[in-house]
Amino acid sequence: MRDVGVLGIGQTPVGEHWDRSIRDLAVDAARAALDEAGLDRVDAIYVGNMASGLLCGQENLATLVADAAGLLPAEAVKIEAACASGGAAVRAGFQAIAGGLHQRVLVVGVEKMTDRVTDGVTAALATAADADYEAAHGASFVALNAILMRRYLDERRIGREAFAPFALLAHKNAARNPHAFFRQEITAEEFARSPSVAPPIAVLDSAGICDGAAALVLAPLEECRRRGSEARRPSAVRLAASASVTDTLALGDRRDPLVWESVAGSARKALKEAGIGLKDLSFYEPHDAFTIVTALSLEACGFADRFAAVDLAKDGRFDAGGELPICTLGGLKGRGHPVGASGTYQVVEAVLQLRGAAGDAQVQGARLGMTQSVGGSGSVALTHVLEAV
Amino acid sequence: MRDVGVLGIGQTPVGEHWDRSIRDLAVDAARAALDEAGLDRVDAIYVGNMASGLLCGQENLATLVADAAGLLPAEAVKIEAACASGGAAVRAGFQAIAGGLHQRVLVVGVEKMTDRVTDGVTAALATAADADYEAAHGASFVALNAILMRRYLDERRIGREAFAPFALLAHKNAARNPHAFFRQEITAEEFARSPSVAPPIAVLDSAGICDGAAALVLAPLEECRRRGSEARRPSAVRLAASASVTDTLALGDRRDPLVWESVAGSARKALKEAGIGLKDLSFYEPHDAFTIVTALSLEACGFADRFAAVDLAKDGRFDAGGELPICTLGGLKGRGHPVGASGTYQVVEAVLQLRGAAGDAQVQGARLGMTQSVGGSGSVALTHVLEAV
Repeated sequence: MRDVGVLGIGQTPVGEHWDRSIRDLAVDAARAALDEAGLDRVDAIYVGNMASGLLCGQENLATLVADAAGLLPAEAVKIEAACASGGAAVRAGFQAIAGGLHQRVLVVGVEKMTDRVTDGVTAALATAADADYEAAHGASFVALNAILMRRYLDERRIGREAFAPFALLAHKNAARNPHAFFRQEITAEEFARSPSVAPPIAVLDSAGICDGAAALVLAPLEECRRRGSEARRPSAVRLAASASVTDTLALGDRRDPLVWESVAGSARKALKEAGIGLKDLSFYEPHDAFTIVTALSLEACGFADRFAAVDLAKDGRFDAGGELPICTLGGLKGRGHPVGASGTYQVVEAVLQLRGAAGDAQVQGARLGMTQSVGGSGSVALTHVLEAV
Repeated sequence: MRDVGVLGIGQTPVGEHWDRSIRDLAVDAARAALDEAGLDRVDAIYVGNMASGLLCGQENLATLVADAAGLLPAEAVKIEAACASGGAAVRAGFQAIAGGLHQRVLVVGVEKMTDRVTDGVTAALATAADADYEAAHGASFVALNAILMRRYLDERRIGREAFAPFALLAHKNAARNPHAFFRQEITAEEFARSPSVAPPIAVLDSAGICDGAAALVLAPLEECRRRGSEARRPSAVRLAASASVTDTLALGDRRDPLVWESVAGSARKALKEAGIGLKDLSFYEPHDAFTIVTALSLEACGFADRFAAVDLAKDGRFDAGGELPICTLGGLKGRGHPVGASGTYQVVEAVLQLRGAAGDAQVQGARLGMTQSVGGSGSVALTHVLEAV
């Protein structure tokens, strides 16, 4: 296996882009990453996207991106792993370089959620759940996460205000990210008064519906070092590990729905592959689509004991400047969660942190970061470790 | 790069499976392939599918298959490249083995078209075209192919009956395939009288709407040889080459819409990679979704000069027993075209031919075969070469 590096990154602001199509967004991010890499062609394009068929009436999406970005006749495929599609596309690109299959590849994560052509975004997102045994009974995606949060609250015997620190820190960090969807801080009182979506989940527990695209150019690390050394320090960012682990789709099939085995397993594999431990990480980007997901992810990875993530969050452990900063550029909650794009945004943001280029949101001395993209209610998890070299 | 071999194959009959869900079909094919390979787990699962979101209300499809087939916690992703998804999934599996990323992988191509949950199959298939510049103007997928066929007929100055040989040979071969959708021969007169769909395309020019799944277990060729040598001759089937090439989505953006550059380019690449020429092939499985696609594919690959494919077909060149048999087990027209599954069915069928296990449809002395899966109207083409070793 060859070492894999990042040759260029690009992203669009996350938001409601009424004047941009899914094609436009993907091309904006792709061209930015290619420009940074100084390339006008690549060997292959991996497009992470969950629901362009349902939301935009467009499949054949990767070929569309190749065409619109001026990259024909390069190989192009769309990679779907529900809300983890953006992470799965990064892994596809990583594998192509690591396995020596290609020399330079483009990864694009993109989702356009505001142009829905069918029954609506809620129905489209529910396709990440089990269509026959969950969605057919009316369980939307937020409803499934509400079941998890309710159980967490009941078992731990706390109220939903215990989850406020996760939302507050995400918004606080997003306020420092010029590409974020929600660039305003929120207060604990606003969190408490937030309108309910599916009790106990309220608006401020949830990532919003939005549009966006992020992109990476990957290449052998040696090439990245060679090019990067002239322009910047660190000389390069290495994709040090990549892991994907699956679990049951339906929550009802799990031994314990509050223990996310896919998240635990993929973190374990990635850390082992990178040859490091949790304590070596400078920051962690969890899949904070709902505050309950942040807590379950922190606990599954081992950053907190069971039911202890909320306490550590209250103590500031995960804040900017804390022991383990999370959601450093706002996370899914603050930066926004264009679903199939989020896993790619996380990696782009980790690169910014490791380059020391995260501006007001910079994690001081960042050297190793871990990103995690989750599909379904913990049914598939993609974990990446990145390193400044 | 390591040599890649086929360790097991499986397929469901193609048809209208009112009693089987997309999950059931995928598991049936997957378990058959795993049983043949003698495995109960794999490292990764690549699921080729075009439109499970629109047709079945189900994304997160690869994790669903991993779950239902008892293969958790294996890595799993869905691969989408429109109607070429089944071929693209084979390529993803090929790359994982060739690049040394995994030791054993499962490829499943699956589509369930009869359970549509949205606007219908025609709308779902139109997502393979350009949503903004083609589909939005009412161009369905068959309409786009009708434009191509009209132009071919006009430039060559012939009538649509010239395409009859392609449909007749596909049905004749399908009649010998127990897994085929249409197991009855048709006559030239039936072809001539066939009701119009989008003139000049008639029902008997077109692959039907249907359900099905096909699967392959891939592994390093050395392992396949070791296991296969005891049980059968040839000792193994090698995936000798794999290539993917893209072209514009919209027909209007092409220099000449009757010259399919993606098909030509991917065939050229695959043959070069396999180190062989067209004349070395024992058979060819084109993406015969419509009779016009068969003609354009034969011409793009170089099996026929421009506008000459119809003449060669009339002379029997492509019939079973002819110089270059095509659609040997019925092709998309006769075996059926569950869109995201077809590219995988082609490879499964090529393995049967190379093993000498194709029954009444056996191509005598088959040693090298080429399969080709096309997405959109020639916007992406996946070509594979298989060899009996």
